[in-house]
Amino acid sequence: MKIAVAKGDGIGSEIMDAVLKIFVANKVPLEYEFVEMGKWVFDKGFSNGMTPEAKETIEKLGALFKGPMETPKGKGVKSINVTARKTWNTYANERRFQSLHGVETVFSKAGIPIDVTVVRENIEDTYGGIEHMLTHDVALSRRFITRPGSLQVIRYAFEIAKTKKAKRITCGHKANIMKITDGLFLECFYEVAKEYPMLKADDVIVDDLCMKLVTRPDTFDVVVLTNLQGDIVSDLCAGLVGGLGFAPSANIGDHISIFEAVHGTAPDIAGKNIANPTALLLSGLSMLRHVGLTENAAVIENALLYTLESGIHTGDFGDKTRPPVNTTQFAEAIISNFGKQPKMNAREVEPNMPGTPAPFKLEKNPMMISKELVNEKIVGVDLFIESDEQPEEIAKKCLRYAGAKFQLINISNRGTQVWPTGSVYTNLVNQCNVRFESQDSQEVTQQDVIGLYLGLSANFKICSIELLNMWGDKRGYSLAQGQ
Amino acid sequence: MKIAVAKGDGIGSEIMDAVLKIFVANKVPLEYEFVEMGKWVFDKGFSNGMTPEAKETIEKLGALFKGPMETPKGKGVKSINVTARKTWNTYANERRFQSLHGVETVFSKAGIPIDVTVVRENIEDTYGGIEHMLTHDVALSRRFITRPGSLQVIRYAFEIAKTKKAKRITCGHKANIMKITDGLFLECFYEVAKEYPMLKADDVIVDDLCMKLVTRPDTFDVVVLTNLQGDIVSDLCAGLVGGLGFAPSANIGDHISIFEAVHGTAPDIAGKNIANPTALLLSGLSMLRHVGLTENAAVIENALLYTLESGIHTGDFGDKTRPPVNTTQFAEAIISNFGKQPKMNAREVEPNMPGTPAPFKLEKNPMMISKELVNEKIVGVDLFIESDEQPEEIAKKCLRYAGAKFQLINISNRGTQVWPTGSVYTNLVNQCNVRFESQDSQEVTQQDVIGLYLGLSANFKICSIELLNMWGDKRGYSLAQGQ
Repeated sequence: MKIAVAKGDGIGSEIMDAVLKIFVANKVPLEYEFVEMGKWVFDKGFSNGMTPEAKETIEKLGALFKGPMETPKGKGVKSINVTARKTWNTYANERRFQSLHGVETVFSKAGIPIDVTVVRENIEDTYGGIEHMLTHDVALSRRFITRPGSLQVIRYAFEIAKTKKAKRITCGHKANIMKITDGLFLECFYEVAKEYPMLKADDVIVDDLCMKLVTRPDTFDVVVLTNLQGDIVSDLCAGLVGGLGFAPSANIGDHISIFEAVHGTAPDIAGKNIANPTALLLSGLSMLRHVGLTENAAVIENALLYTLESGIHTGDFGDKTRPPVNTTQFAEAIISNFGKQPKMNAREVEPNMPGTPAPFKLEKNPMMISKELVNEKIVGVDLFIESDEQPEEIAKKCLRYAGAKFQLINISNRGTQVWPTGSVYTNLVNQCNVRFESQDSQEVTQQDVIGLYLGLSANFKICSIELLNMWGDKRGYSLAQGQ
Repeated sequence: MKIAVAKGDGIGSEIMDAVLKIFVANKVPLEYEFVEMGKWVFDKGFSNGMTPEAKETIEKLGALFKGPMETPKGKGVKSINVTARKTWNTYANERRFQSLHGVETVFSKAGIPIDVTVVRENIEDTYGGIEHMLTHDVALSRRFITRPGSLQVIRYAFEIAKTKKAKRITCGHKANIMKITDGLFLECFYEVAKEYPMLKADDVIVDDLCMKLVTRPDTFDVVVLTNLQGDIVSDLCAGLVGGLGFAPSANIGDHISIFEAVHGTAPDIAGKNIANPTALLLSGLSMLRHVGLTENAAVIENALLYTLESGIHTGDFGDKTRPPVNTTQFAEAIISNFGKQPKMNAREVEPNMPGTPAPFKLEKNPMMISKELVNEKIVGVDLFIESDEQPEEIAKKCLRYAGAKFQLINISNRGTQVWPTGSVYTNLVNQCNVRFESQDSQEVTQQDVIGLYLGLSANFKICSIELLNMWGDKRGYSLAQGQ
């Protein structure tokens, strides 16, 4: 089996060499095809940081093992890491954070063992990067959460929990505030949970989750979250076990998966052969397991744990009274410890079951769609207008255009209702949401909405509009604060 | 001086009694007017959880001291805490997290002292709660960040840093991903920083911040963040010092401020007189300082710290080998320790300087608006359409309507470009963004946009639209991933 390898920038090259040296010494049955990705590829003029050949190879092989990469700053180009994750729909980011004997942390000192797997949705949320300035003062980022996207990552998290023999799987969310978006994610979580009755499934509000993770991290096992919350929680967990230098990362898709070190490229120490390859090695082990090479993964991981336990360390961690080894020596120490058993967290060695990757070649983009609900209808519209007038003035102008089909329901500013009732203590910005609903929730057409839009545009700049939809009796929009 | 007091639900009543007993014993020169707010007020039929009299009193007095409150679940009502914060524009949430001698945590055991103040923007972000289902599968939450709102909270954070004699003020953000919204917040931060040259101002990406907070919390002093990130970071910090039971909270506005315990109402122990009043007391002390009663605040805080140091504790914390005291006894112990000096973190006693609250009565909503930039023009539009067709098919239909004024720039799905170029491995949901820009960035009118909208609506359901604006040469919208 062949995989694509991109060494990355800065220390990428030396830590990748160290890891591949370990793989080769362990006779890992993989072949490596090196591809061109990273800052130096941006510099060569490829605006997405990879050559067309690299893209083709990765899409052909389906697995990419990559070192840390840098995206040039201030050139308006998008992060190469994010582009790769999104283009190839690696919808789940999986990271397992474990206490490592030999890596001292506040929690290891307190005798609190950690073994938390964070599965983070990897495509959606504000990471879509869809942003607009509505007025000179008001910036908008569209945070979207989809049902199929949520189901996809949540299902993966449950599968991981099963493989891990986890006791608990927890959904982190903020559905008490983001009732529709995170509400949807949470609904999907409990929908999937029904298929896994052997797993204890529960949910925690994300701020509470973070408080609990810094006090009792040992009570969590597998945690699944939306993108930004998952990003924050996974780096928090990396901190609990000693930092990004000890945290693996796998980006899983249906066709292409990416295994990478997510720490920086450390240009200051690049080329000195002193960088710590542990995070990249752990990411590589997660790749071996992903392709069924469980025996190689277990033997190498046990050798790594044994090496750490015996006090061998690179300069960035470990017992300062003992001299550090360099990157190559660290790899050699691991190789010399193949077959040894660590005292803590030894992995069971199970025989390899390499999957034969199903040959795939997509002809068109996969469309993910739920069964359509019946009785979808438009019942109104939110018009986001620019104005520095008082709510009463705006309402007066808007009422003129409501016509027979619509009624002006309310005006809100930054989500707080300011008309027909509100508080004079609510500060305003120069953009507000004017909500029109149809009379008696009758269905209206897009043409009706456009008619209203056209009328109002004579008086206001309308920055943005959103239809108000209903599915059966279910309202597809939130109420304003105070409505 | 008079303040409004709402005892709250559950344990609210007994912990408020304990705190007011301490205030009275310390001869705090305040009068208290009790107001009706909380779950029981919802239950009486007031849909926002407070009586009109309560609202009037709070608006008249300008300061509210409140116990924990519960919002009834599943009734579609909004959180009373959030409603209060937003209606009265308490734009800054300020929480100071300090190691307390006598409250054991992982960090106290490791000998890492903590004194971090988190200032969180309290109105904007996804807390606007403006959410829509665009299709049955796609939920959208509008995350908005405004320039005046950001300046307001950031300026407050710098003032707090000055008062605290902080060495460092840090902006936490995710501007590497949310370049326009968090980019705006970060820009405002450095704009305000110029006015405070004596303070070291820097910024950290929020995930990195969380990793650093769980490893080296002692390196942070004052941190300012947007709403959701601030929510997460402040609860994380509460965990570092022992949990919400030891974390004060102040919501600061220009006219009205709210000081509250943010822990739960603990209905299981309500009425038993065993709850821990520390968080509410600390919030009360922050109120005393806010109204200039610095001497009372320092004397009471020193007595609290002395009491904790001496090992006195309620049942939820402290040395388990020593019997706990009840709520009343805890308050009495503090009263008996007035004048004593704690060994650690003793506050300097400075004379009271009660401010005479400026009489205020707003006649209209304050409008916050920056100096308008010139050369604002519309240069295109994003149309978010519902479709389960392939990008090529959608493009074919859209091209028909571009007309002479517009060109079809691209189609993206969940933020990733899928037309004119893209990857077949990008999974689609049934909603995509069709971007039209004007020829050569010429200015177009709202009528031009409406014409395009009308044309496309013959073929598609258009869930949502956003204008593409420019200010001078500055583009007011992001590019799609891969564009």
